[in-house]
Formats: sequence, C-alpha cells, structure tokens
Amino acid sequence: MTYTLVLLRHGESEWNAKNLFTGWVDVPLSEKGTEEATRGGQLLVDAGVAPDVVHTSLLRRAISTANLALDAADLHWIPVKRNWRLNERHYGALQGKNKKEIRDEYGEEQFMLWRRSYDVPPPEIELGSQFSQDSDVRYAGEPIPRSECLKDVLERAMPYWDAEIVPDLKAGKTVLVAAHGNSLRAIIKHLDGIDDETIAGLNVPTGIPLVYELDEELRPTVRGGKYLDPAAAEAAIAAVANQGK
Amino acid sequence: MTYTLVLLRHGESEWNAKNLFTGWVDVPLSEKGTEEATRGGQLLVDAGVAPDVVHTSLLRRAISTANLALDAADLHWIPVKRNWRLNERHYGALQGKNKKEIRDEYGEEQFMLWRRSYDVPPPEIELGSQFSQDSDVRYAGEPIPRSECLKDVLERAMPYWDAEIVPDLKAGKTVLVAAHGNSLRAIIKHLDGIDDETIAGLNVPTGIPLVYELDEELRPTVRGGKYLDPAAAEAAIAAVANQGK
Repeated sequence: MTYTLVLLRHGESEWNAKNLFTGWVDVPLSEKGTEEATRGGQLLVDAGVAPDVVHTSLLRRAISTANLALDAADLHWIPVKRNWRLNERHYGALQGKNKKEIRDEYGEEQFMLWRRSYDVPPPEIELGSQFSQDSDVRYAGEPIPRSECLKDVLERAMPYWDAEIVPDLKAGKTVLVAAHGNSLRAIIKHLDGIDDETIAGLNVPTGIPLVYELDEELRPTVRGGKYLDPAAAEAAIAAVANQGK
Repeated sequence: MTYTLVLLRHGESEWNAKNLFTGWVDVPLSEKGTEEATRGGQLLVDAGVAPDVVHTSLLRRAISTANLALDAADLHWIPVKRNWRLNERHYGALQGKNKKEIRDEYGEEQFMLWRRSYDVPPPEIELGSQFSQDSDVRYAGEPIPRSECLKDVLERAMPYWDAEIVPDLKAGKTVLVAAHGNSLRAIIKHLDGIDDETIAGLNVPTGIPLVYELDEELRPTVRGGKYLDPAAAEAAIAAVANQGK
C-alpha cells in the first residue's frame, strides 16, 4: 500500500515575469503561467494520475493554477481545501521590490541570504504599507507573519500538513497540493529529510507536477519524487536558479 | 438579524449557444458565458455583496462561473463546496438533442411539457449511451437519476440545502450558490413558496446575481429576491423564455 501525493507549483505570475519579489502579494498568472497550468493538467492525464482532492493556498496564482490544471484534466469537480498555511513565503519589506535592484543595492551576499538562507528572514514589512496584508479580510484572526524565512514557512505549513493533508493521504486519496516555490520546498524538505544547508540549492519548477509515492510511514519510496516531464523540469530548475541575475 | 443568500446561474455554455439540451453533459462556458461570469463578479463588488462561502454543482459551467466571478470580486480564496445535488436537471434521453428538432418532432405541447411541467420527466437516457453519466467516476456510489422533472430536482436538492447550505446561512455566512437554471428554480420555489403551476413561468437569467435576504426562519424578506442588475435580468428572462422558438 502506497500513498500518492502530487505537488504543483503555480505557473509564471505577472510579477515573476517582471522579476519582482511577490510573496503574499496576490498577483495573477501571466499568459505564459496560464498555459503552464493547463499543460500541467494535461501531464496528469498523460500519466494517468487523477487527484481525488486538491489543497491550495489563498493566493490566486496557486488557485488559478489548480483550477486550470484540474479543468484540463476533467477533474474540476473534485473537493477543494484552501489555507493560508500553504501561501508563498512572506518576503517582508522586499515585497513589491525588483530583485535586480535589491541585489544591486545590498550586494550578492545579502541578496542570496534573503533569498536562499534557511533561517534569515528579510526585514519585516511596515503595517499598513502598500504590499502588506495586515488588513486583508482573508487572514482575519490568523497569526500571519510580517516576514518569513524558509524555516518559518515550514513551521507554519506543517500544522496544516498534519491536520489536513495527512488524513486525506491516509484515507487513500491521491492528493494534489497547488502552491508556491517555498511552501512546496518546505513540504519536500520534510518528506525527503533534506538538511538546512542542502535545501538552499533545491528549486521547484513551475507548472510541472511532481509525484511522490509514499510508504505507510509517509516516507518517499523514491527520494525527490518524480516530475511528470523530467526534461522540462531540469531545464526549468536551471532557469529558476538564474533569477535575479 | 437577516441572512444573505446569493444565487448565480452559470453564463452561457457552448450548448446553450447551439440550442442543445444539456442537462448533465459537462460542456464548457462559451466566450460570452465567460464574460457573463466575470461581470457577475463585478456586480457583486458594485453592490458590496461579499460571499463567505460558495456552493457549486459538479458541472464545469457552474464551477467556472464561480471561479471567474469570485476572481473578479477578489474572493477566489473563499471556501468551496461542490455536490451533484446542485446539478442541472437531468434531461434524460433529450440530452445532446437539438431543442428545435425535438419541438418539430414531438410538437409544441410535448416539448413544453418536457421543458416546463413540474412533474413530467423526459424519457430515461439509455445506460452507456454517449450522453449518459452512469460510468462517470464523479457520481460513483451516488443515487443518480436517468431523467428528471423539476419535482425530482427539488427532491434531490433539498437534502443538500438542509445539510450544507442552511448551516452556512445560520452561521451568519453570506452564501453564494453557483448552479443551474433548474436547481436554482427548485431553491427559489422552496424559498418563495411558489406553487407547482406558477413555477413553470419562472426563468432565471444567466450571470446576474440574485440576492435574497432571509429572516430567522429563512423566509425571504422580499419575495423573489433582488437581481443586482434588474434591467438586464428582465431582458434576459424574456430571452430565455424564447429558447427553442
């Protein structure tokens, strides 16, 4: 008996295309991102992988990706659960800023520390500022952050993993998680037991389903899982690594 | 204390545009239907009506309408529940047939009986035939029909109304139901206490939110509710009445 988990990072957003730090700013998919999402659904069909339930963040780039992929796979009707704990990493005061400008202003070392270190969050965002979510009704009453490192993401994602995703897996459902680069990295770090340094080098490509078969203790039967389009995944991982350059 | 219920019929589908009986056949929105859905969301924003939860059928024209309307209203992130009990009326053996051809073949009286009578269902669909849903995995284990009259729709929709929609209303949530001409007519018949003959003349226009304020016994404070664009609703109701002519 194995369990099947499918991870899907949203397609390119309008701010990915503009090279801006996005985080919790709720930008839409770009036209390319829309196509990526639909193709992600077709990859599921081609592989015969049919999710029984989908979990998404509260951000439209992940929600739209799930909607488009599932519609392409004729699975638009499956149950949906949404939670802020699957959101992208909160980029704090960097949200809305250009990646290249931040790199030029603060230097390569600080830039990479904010982007890739496991436990150094960017400066906190100012409450009430343009790209802050502190008055956003969708987070009312929730203990939302003002900035996060990957460690913070893992710590707020895991309660949702344990409470909502694990029970679906253990019920024998094929679970799709449509989310973000860093919330998916947090889940992958947990599943594959990746250490705090090695996780820095792990990128998740957009729009390509990553399928994990898990054993009864929810350990991957194949470490790292399996991308449904391995060649495209490899090329995309290389491209993500070049962001901000 | 009043409760707020918003009913939204999906925008035009590709088969509405082709004048075919659709029922449970899972056709997509037409381009016009896509625009209607987005405009429906803008009408919600303009009226300051913000659903806290959405209920949909299992058919993509209702699901896409909800997705598009909620995205336009910046409410793509609200919780979603889906159930076949909100599906369109099952049109039995008429599914996939041209409305005008059926009218020409069977005559105006039989045609209108099948379309508008409260308790005369069309002939049952043949199991395994092209437009039957008997082997569709989304309905596995459910007591799905092979043909329905409006009375049948009401009888299968009400258990869902009572079990899932009423509790959301009583919890003080503004509830959006994104569904179909006949599942919405069933809900409206129940809410407004419309008799079996009068309901025949009631049409619900596509893409225009219909808002009911309900009292503590879930009776409408204004019979018939209020369309968010009354002039467009009136024009659309007239157009629906002319279908098949």
